[in-house]
Amino acid sequence: VDTEEFRRLGHEVVDWIADYRARLARGEFPVMSRVAPGEVRAALPVVPPVQPQSLDGVLDELTRLILPGCTHWQDPRFFAYFPSNSSLAAVLGDFLSTGLAQLGLNWQASPALTELEELTTDWLRQMLELSSDWSGVIQDTASTATLVALISARERATEYGAARGGLQASGRPLVVYASSQSHSSVEKAALLAGFGRDNVRIVAVDQHFGMSADALRTAVAQDEAAGRLPCAIVATVGSTATTAVDPLEALAGVARTRGLWLHVDAAMAGSAMILPECRPLWQGIELADSLVLNPHKWLGASFDCSTYFVRDPQHLVRVMSTNPSYLRTAADAKVRNFRDWGIPLGRRFRALKLWLLIREQGVQGLQARLRRDLEHARWLAAQIDATPGWQRLAPVPFQTVCVRHVPDGATGEALDAHTLAWVRRINESGRAFLTAAVLEDRWMVRVSFGGEGTTHDHVVALWAQMQDEAERRV
Amino acid sequence: VDTEEFRRLGHEVVDWIADYRARLARGEFPVMSRVAPGEVRAALPVVPPVQPQSLDGVLDELTRLILPGCTHWQDPRFFAYFPSNSSLAAVLGDFLSTGLAQLGLNWQASPALTELEELTTDWLRQMLELSSDWSGVIQDTASTATLVALISARERATEYGAARGGLQASGRPLVVYASSQSHSSVEKAALLAGFGRDNVRIVAVDQHFGMSADALRTAVAQDEAAGRLPCAIVATVGSTATTAVDPLEALAGVARTRGLWLHVDAAMAGSAMILPECRPLWQGIELADSLVLNPHKWLGASFDCSTYFVRDPQHLVRVMSTNPSYLRTAADAKVRNFRDWGIPLGRRFRALKLWLLIREQGVQGLQARLRRDLEHARWLAAQIDATPGWQRLAPVPFQTVCVRHVPDGATGEALDAHTLAWVRRINESGRAFLTAAVLEDRWMVRVSFGGEGTTHDHVVALWAQMQDEAERRV
Repeated sequence: VDTEEFRRLGHEVVDWIADYRARLARGEFPVMSRVAPGEVRAALPVVPPVQPQSLDGVLDELTRLILPGCTHWQDPRFFAYFPSNSSLAAVLGDFLSTGLAQLGLNWQASPALTELEELTTDWLRQMLELSSDWSGVIQDTASTATLVALISARERATEYGAARGGLQASGRPLVVYASSQSHSSVEKAALLAGFGRDNVRIVAVDQHFGMSADALRTAVAQDEAAGRLPCAIVATVGSTATTAVDPLEALAGVARTRGLWLHVDAAMAGSAMILPECRPLWQGIELADSLVLNPHKWLGASFDCSTYFVRDPQHLVRVMSTNPSYLRTAADAKVRNFRDWGIPLGRRFRALKLWLLIREQGVQGLQARLRRDLEHARWLAAQIDATPGWQRLAPVPFQTVCVRHVPDGATGEALDAHTLAWVRRINESGRAFLTAAVLEDRWMVRVSFGGEGTTHDHVVALWAQMQDEAERRV
Repeated sequence: VDTEEFRRLGHEVVDWIADYRARLARGEFPVMSRVAPGEVRAALPVVPPVQPQSLDGVLDELTRLILPGCTHWQDPRFFAYFPSNSSLAAVLGDFLSTGLAQLGLNWQASPALTELEELTTDWLRQMLELSSDWSGVIQDTASTATLVALISARERATEYGAARGGLQASGRPLVVYASSQSHSSVEKAALLAGFGRDNVRIVAVDQHFGMSADALRTAVAQDEAAGRLPCAIVATVGSTATTAVDPLEALAGVARTRGLWLHVDAAMAGSAMILPECRPLWQGIELADSLVLNPHKWLGASFDCSTYFVRDPQHLVRVMSTNPSYLRTAADAKVRNFRDWGIPLGRRFRALKLWLLIREQGVQGLQARLRRDLEHARWLAAQIDATPGWQRLAPVPFQTVCVRHVPDGATGEALDAHTLAWVRRINESGRAFLTAAVLEDRWMVRVSFGGEGTTHDHVVALWAQMQDEAERRV
């Protein structure tokens, strides 16, 4: 593909994507893919082509073979997992990133990549009304950022033990605290960082599924009494199952008193903190040591774009830095080398998509869209609360509504079977996609709003379908 | 940006990128950016826009403010670090990935994403002539893949200690072996994984900078005698400084005999193994446990696209897996969930760029380009060998030539100063970009070929400029 062929094919690709997005808006696809396991792969050649092939016709092939294998995250009727908006302004920014093909090994390797990342993460900091004590960097996902946070906590607690015998030389075992509602990536990060599952405490939650500060305090005291060293707390703002909020200020009190690292996982709901009316929910955030939130979720910055903020970047750099001769440059003393702010050495120019998104929407545009989504959730919650046979299972601080339909007398496994059956019928209808999760040992359905294209009409249609599918076969 | 505005702006972006690539081919930019630290950021607004802004004119702004801050990795005169080709076929594939905005949390969340990744990594496996015992997955970088490998080694050696007390409960300290020529990411990975620097052995190299199997054997025996547990060897095929090759077969002998994990870092040079004539260099690869190679480097698959191959995917999944209720689906027993093959949960549709690259080039097209690059390196090596005052410092098994110009009698720090001065003059000329590195305590210059657009004429011009800049001011 030379530049002129690229121009021609590139225009075709843009048109194909524009058409795809327009078709999504018209509801032309089943939201959840209907292919069977292995079906996509079986339609494609087992061996790679020996001779060069023309790319003419590849878009038809994509339409025919790949689209049916896609679950449409950008469909306005996608209510599963969490919103993963890829706003078209961000898409353009990502195109530019791919076309420029910069690689940010160090500042000199792409000064613009580094400095636009400094700028856009600082824009986001201002939008969140975080103090200027915070510094940001873009990582791939919250899973990775939480791993970085726990390693940072580990190294602070051991006074940089990695430079000596590592965790293998630790005396008192270090302990990590999270709640039963924490994301699965928290335990995964603790295990990968070497703490071991025996040293991960699952702290009890209150009736609203936020971590109990009293239970945390007790757990920390017990570990200290047993000769272990409490190391880190991972607090969640907007848990995965119910968007529950841990009480940051109270948890920070424990962290400060006992010298623990406080990491805040606000991967999904953190975007809401660009709304002043939501900020009381994370009161105490300034007392945390690290924070992750994902503009690639609700905000719209095209995956992957996870922002990690820290209050002590020198500590982060000391934990993550390498300085081999082949990466040194004359500018090093005067610049940030983001390779020392995370795990990978190579880095994409991810700031471009965040830059174009924020510019095109403006802070007010982003705020207006998020407020619309909060309203979607409040509206559905009100319908559920007013409708016999339906139960709302958790508060709705953000954009997720947790629900069960409970036929007369249904309990236990029969209730689970009913729940999983009606959500499956909805998903198989192709007209909406919802996911189920377990809450207090029973299945429930999460309705997660936030799709960029989701209007009130989509929400009304969803609620009608939920009632239809849940009630008709009781 | 609605779909019609996206169509219009998208065409402009494609044209802008096509023009940019054409200008690169004509040599219109200084290869290494000339901006001063802070210059890009200072030209941009400190605060985010409150109101929405039109994206009209943003491309002019990019040309004016961002391009001068770019070091041009796609310039045919880029000979620094390593090639990071972003071939235009792969660019189109990445556009499609961004436009489709799939998120591969699990198979059901995007069956096509998962299955095309299975397919393309298997195509690559076939191109490398690896046996069908290997299974591949796409990760972001070799740094991350090596971290995953060392954690996998740690968990095998401890019989899944992460599920109990982690590294904190280990009895005998686990030890990792690498050479003085290993990439900096190897030590970083060992430190992040908790081994501790005291338990990272830097094994001596032979006169060609490959790891000495004898020295490895001795180090392993010493550690065993001291009560430590040898855990993993990281072997390099194509080291960063000189593209040296560790003797895999001999190292694998030690690994098998003593029960160590053998991870092979072929991040850059692994691409050459699609050439049958290069494969003798990694004789013994089938005896390794894991392997990373980056199609986003020499091969051209647009960053990020690092392929990680393992022989025991069940072990990898056991180490990396999480199974919270909100991610479970009915298909789980029949499919791969790639979230359990690495650190991040969310995943981009990265296989699209690899798919389009391999199709458009065909295996033969990729082979022809790599052979051309090997020839560039051999040609320059021959000129250096034939020219008085110039020293070639290492064998040239791949596409990198390591060189010093040694004026009469220059040694020690004077020689270093001369080396750094002439390479700086070249870089500041804007006509080429080279990087220096330390080899045996002295600076040298690495000439790294492999840029997709680099022709023999570019190589001839580079050699003329090297002679001019190094010799004229002696």
